[in-house]
Amino acid sequence: MSEGQILSRILATLSPSQAIVGPGDDAAVLAMPDGRVVATTDTLVHGPDFRLAWSSGFDLGWKSAAVNLSDIAAMGATPTALLVALAMPEQTAMSFVEQFAAGLRAACESLAPGCAVEGGDLTVSDTLTVAVTALGTLDGQSPVLRSGAGVGDVVAIAGTLGAAGRGLALLFDRFRDAEGFPCAIDFASLSETEAADMSAQLRPEPPVRLGRVAAAARATAMMDVSDGLVLDASRIADASGVSVSIQTSALGVDAPNALTGGEDHALLATFAHGSVLPEGFHAIGVIEARGSAPVMVDGRAFTGRGGWDPYGDWDATRG
Amino acid sequence: MSEGQILSRILATLSPSQAIVGPGDDAAVLAMPDGRVVATTDTLVHGPDFRLAWSSGFDLGWKSAAVNLSDIAAMGATPTALLVALAMPEQTAMSFVEQFAAGLRAACESLAPGCAVEGGDLTVSDTLTVAVTALGTLDGQSPVLRSGAGVGDVVAIAGTLGAAGRGLALLFDRFRDAEGFPCAIDFASLSETEAADMSAQLRPEPPVRLGRVAAAARATAMMDVSDGLVLDASRIADASGVSVSIQTSALGVDAPNALTGGEDHALLATFAHGSVLPEGFHAIGVIEARGSAPVMVDGRAFTGRGGWDPYGDWDATRG
Repeated sequence: MSEGQILSRILATLSPSQAIVGPGDDAAVLAMPDGRVVATTDTLVHGPDFRLAWSSGFDLGWKSAAVNLSDIAAMGATPTALLVALAMPEQTAMSFVEQFAAGLRAACESLAPGCAVEGGDLTVSDTLTVAVTALGTLDGQSPVLRSGAGVGDVVAIAGTLGAAGRGLALLFDRFRDAEGFPCAIDFASLSETEAADMSAQLRPEPPVRLGRVAAAARATAMMDVSDGLVLDASRIADASGVSVSIQTSALGVDAPNALTGGEDHALLATFAHGSVLPEGFHAIGVIEARGSAPVMVDGRAFTGRGGWDPYGDWDATRG
Repeated sequence: MSEGQILSRILATLSPSQAIVGPGDDAAVLAMPDGRVVATTDTLVHGPDFRLAWSSGFDLGWKSAAVNLSDIAAMGATPTALLVALAMPEQTAMSFVEQFAAGLRAACESLAPGCAVEGGDLTVSDTLTVAVTALGTLDGQSPVLRSGAGVGDVVAIAGTLGAAGRGLALLFDRFRDAEGFPCAIDFASLSETEAADMSAQLRPEPPVRLGRVAAAARATAMMDVSDGLVLDASRIADASGVSVSIQTSALGVDAPNALTGGEDHALLATFAHGSVLPEGFHAIGVIEARGSAPVMVDGRAFTGRGGWDPYGDWDATRG
């Protein structure tokens, strides 16, 4: 099939354009009524970021949208458009591409209603790769940065911690063949809890709407927890010149995965001391003056591995 | 090296941020004073889009910026920011990455002063891949679409046609080894003309500034010529419901490459009958009522291959 034929099948699957100029010209034109645009890009690569034996086309579309929508939310903004670059091997089935588009659409409709795919690019590659750019609007509010946390602020979380990490462990423990290669997931073999963990890994549901809610509640700092709570908390700590002190008693029954499991796509935010936390957020700690480490856990410097390094941690297998 | 270490080396090479919020947070925040943003994305993949034996890191950075800047220009807009997703094999040398960043910077400074890299993503991949998103502003003007060409309009070009296609032919003809694999370019062996063609292929210089100039001169339609003049002209013809009639006498001495050679990144625009063409544009034809074919060349329907299909035309070699 030609690029044009594939594109027309994709466009038929996506939700209708909301843009001034939507897909089909050299570039899209989008309304940004408050005179600013929030923009982020994140890539999913076959191998380090997903395995085709484990992720359907729908899962891949959903996740590639969700992780970018979460970055827009983490600025206190509302996502309004995605641009999607898809590079795929020539033998990729058209049905996979259509399911991918359906996953993009479903994630937008579920997590960020009104946000649609407004442009993209299609090319051939030996390695299936999805690069998504998300754009959003602050609607007149100030962006919430990583650098605004102050001593005494409450540290809070919206969304789930640890489930995606447990889902990844399930995949590696139970759904590889005798040679260690990924194989099909037997969903019927999963308990209810395991199924929820698997879903958090393959089809994450970041609390995108709560980014705006946190900004309205005057969050002093915020970020998307994607590489592990401790590693990401250290980024707020470094940007703000403080230490983040976390209580594991607030992290539920599986503190180890909550602390360092990756791909949560929860929102980590700080609020001034004494604030009433907005809906969906619960306290997990407090901001302290910069101490011996960026992140303290139960009062002690956290010196272990704080999370996943997307550049250094891939073991070079695909499947 | 970790992602953070690589990023800090890249950021040190790039030009300073011009944004409200630049690199380093979950997303960038950019001013869009007229309440709209123009956005496009284009990907370069090792294999179909470039070969490492032929393109330096600098070339790759330059070209991945230039092709996206050109798409913004083709809307009549001015580019203001790039987001750059780089997926690369683990063994990629840091010097290559720094040269890549230098190429991004140089292309922005040369082609679109004031435009800078304001965000990005770094990941590991078996296949070196660059996905760039360019954002731009219309500064209150209307976007110039592909659909606005009217019967009687003058068809005009800014930039060069055919040189990049000749450069690609030079690479395949002269710089492959005995087994047909790409090998190092012997620049000293090139004539002055050949060197210019090679430069047009490896380090294109689209007339980005003239996109805005064409919009101010009330271009009725415009697009970036990236896949070949005839193929791209057929897209304006189809979007506008007309035929594009081209005179080869206006295309210089190498009409075949001008008609169907790819990667020109010239601007193809139409202007109302009788218009004085703006600086940098010269007439190559006229818009006619829709005839037997979308593109007529010297009065006859063009029935050959009109250009390069980025999805169907790769021969699956890399090097």
